[in-house]
Amino acid sequence: MTPKMSARLGAEMLGSFWLVFGGCGTAVLGAYFLAPDNEAVNLGVGHLGVSIAFGLTVLTGIYALGAVSGGHFNPAVTFGLALGKRFPWKDVVPYWIVQIIGATIGGAVLLVVANGIPGFSASESGFATNGYDDLSPGGYSLLACAVIEVVLTAMFLYVILGATDARAPIGFAGVAIGLALTLIHLISIPVTNTSVNPARSLGVAWFAGSDALSQVWLFLLAPLVGGAIAGLTYALVTGVDREGVEVTGDVEAE
Amino acid sequence: MTPKMSARLGAEMLGSFWLVFGGCGTAVLGAYFLAPDNEAVNLGVGHLGVSIAFGLTVLTGIYALGAVSGGHFNPAVTFGLALGKRFPWKDVVPYWIVQIIGATIGGAVLLVVANGIPGFSASESGFATNGYDDLSPGGYSLLACAVIEVVLTAMFLYVILGATDARAPIGFAGVAIGLALTLIHLISIPVTNTSVNPARSLGVAWFAGSDALSQVWLFLLAPLVGGAIAGLTYALVTGVDREGVEVTGDVEAE
Amino acid sequence: MTPKMSARLGAEMLGSFWLVFGGCGTAVLGAYFLAPDNEAVNLGVGHLGVSIAFGLTVLTGIYALGAVSGGHFNPAVTFGLALGKRFPWKDVVPYWIVQIIGATIGGAVLLVVANGIPGFSASESGFATNGYDDLSPGGYSLLACAVIEVVLTAMFLYVILGATDARAPIGFAGVAIGLALTLIHLISIPVTNTSVNPARSLGVAWFAGSDALSQVWLFLLAPLVGGAIAGLTYALVTGVDREGVEVTGDVEAE
Amino acid sequence: MTPKMSARLGAEMLGSFWLVFGGCGTAVLGAYFLAPDNEAVNLGVGHLGVSIAFGLTVLTGIYALGAVSGGHFNPAVTFGLALGKRFPWKDVVPYWIVQIIGATIGGAVLLVVANGIPGFSASESGFATNGYDDLSPGGYSLLACAVIEVVLTAMFLYVILGATDARAPIGFAGVAIGLALTLIHLISIPVTNTSVNPARSLGVAWFAGSDALSQVWLFLLAPLVGGAIAGLTYALVTGVDREGVEVTGDVEAE
Repeated sequence: MTPKMSARLGAEMLGSFWLVFGGCGTAVLGAYFLAPDNEAVNLGVGHLGVSIAFGLTVLTGIYALGAVSGGHFNPAVTFGLALGKRFPWKDVVPYWIVQIIGATIGGAVLLVVANGIPGFSASESGFATNGYDDLSPGGYSLLACAVIEVVLTAMFLYVILGATDARAPIGFAGVAIGLALTLIHLISIPVTNTSVNPARSLGVAWFAGSDALSQVWLFLLAPLVGGAIAGLTYALVTGVDREGVEVTGDVEAE
Repeated sequence: MTPKMSARLGAEMLGSFWLVFGGCGTAVLGAYFLAPDNEAVNLGVGHLGVSIAFGLTVLTGIYALGAVSGGHFNPAVTFGLALGKRFPWKDVVPYWIVQIIGATIGGAVLLVVANGIPGFSASESGFATNGYDDLSPGGYSLLACAVIEVVLTAMFLYVILGATDARAPIGFAGVAIGLALTLIHLISIPVTNTSVNPARSLGVAWFAGSDALSQVWLFLLAPLVGGAIAGLTYALVTGVDREGVEVTGDVEAE
Repeated sequence: MTPKMSARLGAEMLGSFWLVFGGCGTAVLGAYFLAPDNEAVNLGVGHLGVSIAFGLTVLTGIYALGAVSGGHFNPAVTFGLALGKRFPWKDVVPYWIVQIIGATIGGAVLLVVANGIPGFSASESGFATNGYDDLSPGGYSLLACAVIEVVLTAMFLYVILGATDARAPIGFAGVAIGLALTLIHLISIPVTNTSVNPARSLGVAWFAGSDALSQVWLFLLAPLVGGAIAGLTYALVTGVDREGVEVTGDVEAE
Repeated sequence: MTPKMSARLGAEMLGSFWLVFGGCGTAVLGAYFLAPDNEAVNLGVGHLGVSIAFGLTVLTGIYALGAVSGGHFNPAVTFGLALGKRFPWKDVVPYWIVQIIGATIGGAVLLVVANGIPGFSASESGFATNGYDDLSPGGYSLLACAVIEVVLTAMFLYVILGATDARAPIGFAGVAIGLALTLIHLISIPVTNTSVNPARSLGVAWFAGSDALSQVWLFLLAPLVGGAIAGLTYALVTGVDREGVEVTGDVEAE
């Protein structure tokens, strides 16, 4: 029943591409667009549109590809699912590699499009990278940024683990998980520009200069810590005998 | 079939944390964020984003945790369900306690993050608390605030009771209930900053100073009254023999 | 299987109340709310929030009450369903009466809340009424207003008839129908303030003065014409033998 | 089981009308609407509302008409599905013809409504047409516009092919496909005004003057290329034996 590994890796790469190209693409191309004759009016989609975009990349990715790969598109999700005994450890590193490759291709194609207007500079614009202190959109401290990334990634994993639990209604996991990512962005774009996903952070940081890259460590570390907390505690919190949860490569299988 | 009480209480606490951290967090951190070079443009998510955030905390919470605890996350919901014979009376007070604890932890963690920028003050910012008269966002009178909180909580409970009724389509309750909370916020943020949930009101009021706390009584009382009205009249309005409704601890069970 | 008539009428009245209180309530209370220190920034939900609110009143109303009454909440829907042989003619007038009563109660309770700030005037604010020519929000002509109301109500009924057709996926009708009403508002708020529903138009027009009432005839007539067009042509367009469609009082039954 | 061809063509024509009237209608009528007393505030729905509108035309169209025609409403979708062996080649040209006719009627009815205010000019307003270089909303180059249209149409087809795959959860395809179109608009309105659909581009270009028509070739070509890429590679990427995919005229059949 489980698809072959090459298809699973292809699906994870494609979904991770979609997450960065769609989510970061909306942030870079679509968030700010002044009305032609009125500089006080932004017709662009703002942080709300960016939040919806990130969520919809995952919602659509899960319905399109979840049956193939499980629809992670995020190393912290893969890690948390492995710690929660929902995903085989031997597949973690291959998933991580293709997630980062897909996200990086997403960043590269986005750069091609963004360069379609004269004078665009990825390093000056920020290119949707994540940051703390002076690179936090709202100037939030390292502590605040670390706390919110850990907490939000943990909650993201609780939603994923719960919505794909055998006790949850069939088919709705993609809606719940995608909209959880929208919610996470609504809360935290002003704080860290929202990561909860090491691949998403790396996928654009390569192209945004040394300042962005110097802070990317936090967005590799904090999401993994948050994912681990949820993966290790989900069974305890929700009363499942951890030994009884089946190990599967397909999160969406029901 | 019903999960053990410790798991149900853990799930209610986690979901109530999520409701306050996600909903009030969006209001405090994400609603207002001026574009870097244009003070006439708010890139933040505004009241629409806050409304969506509150709804998505409940939508995602129900799919993640509803099978464990029923997914109330709100003392007025628990009360209305008990009056509607859908929830055992003996579990009401334990649920209330963990709902308030979870909501308070949500407020506390939010305060840690919000303090990550210099000069933040919970009492001066309002910290997403509810209020009437001079603490109403739009300056609405106590009467108007009481009416809208009672009416909206009653409608919230009608949606909950109807969408989890045996006659409703399976699985969609989380979508309907979560989006009902979004709708409720769209209507009423300018009036009371929207409570319909005593735990949500308390969870941030502790941290916002004596003015906010002096008005919190209305947001404990009015939602409970609204929930009671719906719980007592649902069966009559929709033609169900009240004696025939089964008593269960699991709202989402179908 | 069909609920008794008193329950069906109660459900229609409650749902029509919800449509006006929630949809018009968001327009009156929530659409425009300036940031405390920045008069160039609207934190209110704008036309997008109003569009989402109207759609969510129907989405939540269908999941809460659709199994009882069919979830019409709109005389043009009831009329179109009767013409499409999906609803018994003998129940049309009772449905119309309770829909108008419920909508009017919605307008009255909204007026109580809106009067909670000093100086509010329903007639000066417009109170979310519909209009053409000088009462059209954007100044659109009677012809343009008539065309768009007829076309949009017809499309609304096509969605309703199609999404509740035996061939459609089970359970999704509430999502499709509610979001169709959101879409209809996105298109047409600047033109007529969007009716497609005679009960919604009447429910607020009573309270907004003689100018609004003098134009309400268009919003009684045009939606009924649009509903009739769709009801009479749906079977032809989609290839159903009209004689084969069962007559039922429960639109959501599947 | 497959509906007769006249019904399928009628459904495709109606859905394509809805896509243009609803999506382009929101762009033309609803996106920009200044608050009566505050020219710094846009109450209109902006690019976010336009993105939601386009997505909802397809979401509602699929639940209303998908069981009849498959719910394409887009020549690039029909082409990609044929290449992916999901749609019979002999029906491609008839579908294309009615899609373009329906879209053109949508543009024509929209023009009638838009002319309801004095001084409206389709050619001066742009009338929601697509363009590159000086007709790109944000001034993006032909290369950037071609890349983004190809990539986004390919991703749209991957979502369609995946969400209607036998392995995907039943019933959710309309949600995933409609919201994918919303996401596509969030990313790309500033670049090309978003086509991914030759019928949508033609449906308004006829009415907008020679400049718009002179660029429409790109929005016929690029979406077909994108659709072809996905149709030809979907099976390979997701590990399906292409020979094993059944050929059907009904995308939504499950």
